[in-house]
Amino acid sequence: MSTNSIQLAHGGGGLEMNKLIRNLFFKAFDNCILRNEEDAALLNLQGPTAFTTDSFTVSPLFFAGGDIGKLAIAGTVNDLAMMGAEPQYLSLGVIIEEGFPMASLETIVASMASELKKCGAKIVCGDTKVVPKGCADGLFLNTTGVGRIVKPGLSAKRLMPGDAILVSGDIGRHGAAILMAREGLELESGLVSDCATLWGAVEQLLVHPFDIHAMRDATRGGLSAVLNEWAAASDVMIEVDEAAVPVSDEVKGLCELYGFEATDLANEGTFVMALPAAQADGALEVLKRFGHCENAVIIGRVGESPAGRVILHTPWGSNRYLDLPAGELLPRIC
Amino acid sequence: MSTNSIQLAHGGGGLEMNKLIRNLFFKAFDNCILRNEEDAALLNLQGPTAFTTDSFTVSPLFFAGGDIGKLAIAGTVNDLAMMGAEPQYLSLGVIIEEGFPMASLETIVASMASELKKCGAKIVCGDTKVVPKGCADGLFLNTTGVGRIVKPGLSAKRLMPGDAILVSGDIGRHGAAILMAREGLELESGLVSDCATLWGAVEQLLVHPFDIHAMRDATRGGLSAVLNEWAAASDVMIEVDEAAVPVSDEVKGLCELYGFEATDLANEGTFVMALPAAQADGALEVLKRFGHCENAVIIGRVGESPAGRVILHTPWGSNRYLDLPAGELLPRIC
Repeated sequence: MSTNSIQLAHGGGGLEMNKLIRNLFFKAFDNCILRNEEDAALLNLQGPTAFTTDSFTVSPLFFAGGDIGKLAIAGTVNDLAMMGAEPQYLSLGVIIEEGFPMASLETIVASMASELKKCGAKIVCGDTKVVPKGCADGLFLNTTGVGRIVKPGLSAKRLMPGDAILVSGDIGRHGAAILMAREGLELESGLVSDCATLWGAVEQLLVHPFDIHAMRDATRGGLSAVLNEWAAASDVMIEVDEAAVPVSDEVKGLCELYGFEATDLANEGTFVMALPAAQADGALEVLKRFGHCENAVIIGRVGESPAGRVILHTPWGSNRYLDLPAGELLPRIC
Repeated sequence: MSTNSIQLAHGGGGLEMNKLIRNLFFKAFDNCILRNEEDAALLNLQGPTAFTTDSFTVSPLFFAGGDIGKLAIAGTVNDLAMMGAEPQYLSLGVIIEEGFPMASLETIVASMASELKKCGAKIVCGDTKVVPKGCADGLFLNTTGVGRIVKPGLSAKRLMPGDAILVSGDIGRHGAAILMAREGLELESGLVSDCATLWGAVEQLLVHPFDIHAMRDATRGGLSAVLNEWAAASDVMIEVDEAAVPVSDEVKGLCELYGFEATDLANEGTFVMALPAAQADGALEVLKRFGHCENAVIIGRVGESPAGRVILHTPWGSNRYLDLPAGELLPRIC
């Protein structure tokens, strides 16, 4: 059997699978819960816990600023953080296409291990499946996470008139980076995905007495999706100053070229936050201490009517509704 | 857009995905945690908790006795049950190939909902990804579950000389049913997969004062894999009377035809248990009250040496090692 690529036997439940699990996954993610090798990991959880799942099918698997492994850790850790929860334990489900290069798998696993170190979460159980050549596109991952809720009550339903809307950084970079990688524009731009674990910055926000109403990372559907979901769930109007929304020149350029709106593009390390306007500057000050949040800024505010709608004030003085994205957007963004 | 099949937009994070999630998944799995629609589900867990993940890539998606949906619920629920945990909350990750028939997805989702009702567990969060045609083989699922540990201390490391080894039913039916479905033998046999949720039977075992040392469902790698892993983890010898191992005539026939060993074939609703020999008859009595465990039987016992090995006593008086299966076995069994 070739040891340079994944074979069907690596998913067969026998000898070869055991070797792969021990030599690759256990070594990279080493912790005593994982090493127990029971049917399920044993956790000691107390009280309110957040629980979230994400599958990752991004194409290509490697892109400027990250890879599917980094994405899979950051994505699930960020979903926990957005609920005010400390990311603690993750499961990892791996679906691999027969013939997938072992070296690529090793790189992706190392990338996961490195991202885990940034937030202290651990992979404590896993599952490996191998499908025949042609039955999957290289590699799919699922990460499911649990975390202790440090700050209860964060909710898409809690926005109130008078809240300020903040974003933690310039938007659309993950979507743009994937687009760039697909179109082979890697060398022509300094643009990298925003893919990052947000727990460090969120943890600092949560130790301050801010009355944060809601946080959400603006992944698929981008800023538009988050704001529309919030406006609907809280039955409020959200207004955004288009000129205040930070967008890098590289993302602007790609959007013009391909006809996308930066507000619809996915992010993987950028989040939106709603809290009383009086506290917004204080929250910004905390956020800006973190490298990947140094472009954090207030982009809008919450009002009453028309309830359920998001209004964009353009730099030219006109207003338009910012709608939930429809259609295909950019498939396989995460 | 066609409503008869899955389109890329169903995974785009926008309008179409929202509709799919509300009209299909929320309706089938309805519960108040799921309906919160936050980035993560909020659970109130107390004390020792089991946590397990499984991805499902079975081919074909529909087989005698079940489908990928039933399998995905039973598989994860059973992993929790095997650790002495009451299955409580599940996440669901769905990866769908563009063009997948909506009717098949509906059938699979209904199958999941029906299997959940048998154990009381709830799907409380989910994720949907759609990949372009040719990038996946129809549908892959991931279920990750958490459950309250009712009986602590079950472990592959706890087998002791003097334990009896029980199986809850005749072995190899899931593997054989998948093989049959692939070879188009559906109509020629009454054989169905053993795919079933084991929590009902396990719950009854756990309310009795049996000192169960270990339980494990014999999935990929079959009975051989479980016994070899146990012998290694507990550093004991396990001996099995081949004649006592229940195998249906249909499974025997298929094994002869294709050159498989029933002990290597996967099960999805059959488990192995180790407990002190004096308690084995009592445990059997409890198990046999359940329809899918009525063939439960003692197949062997735990000894000391050679430690780490499984010995099979054949009906002809000879002995051989039962080894961990190697090679491909039957790919995409679950």
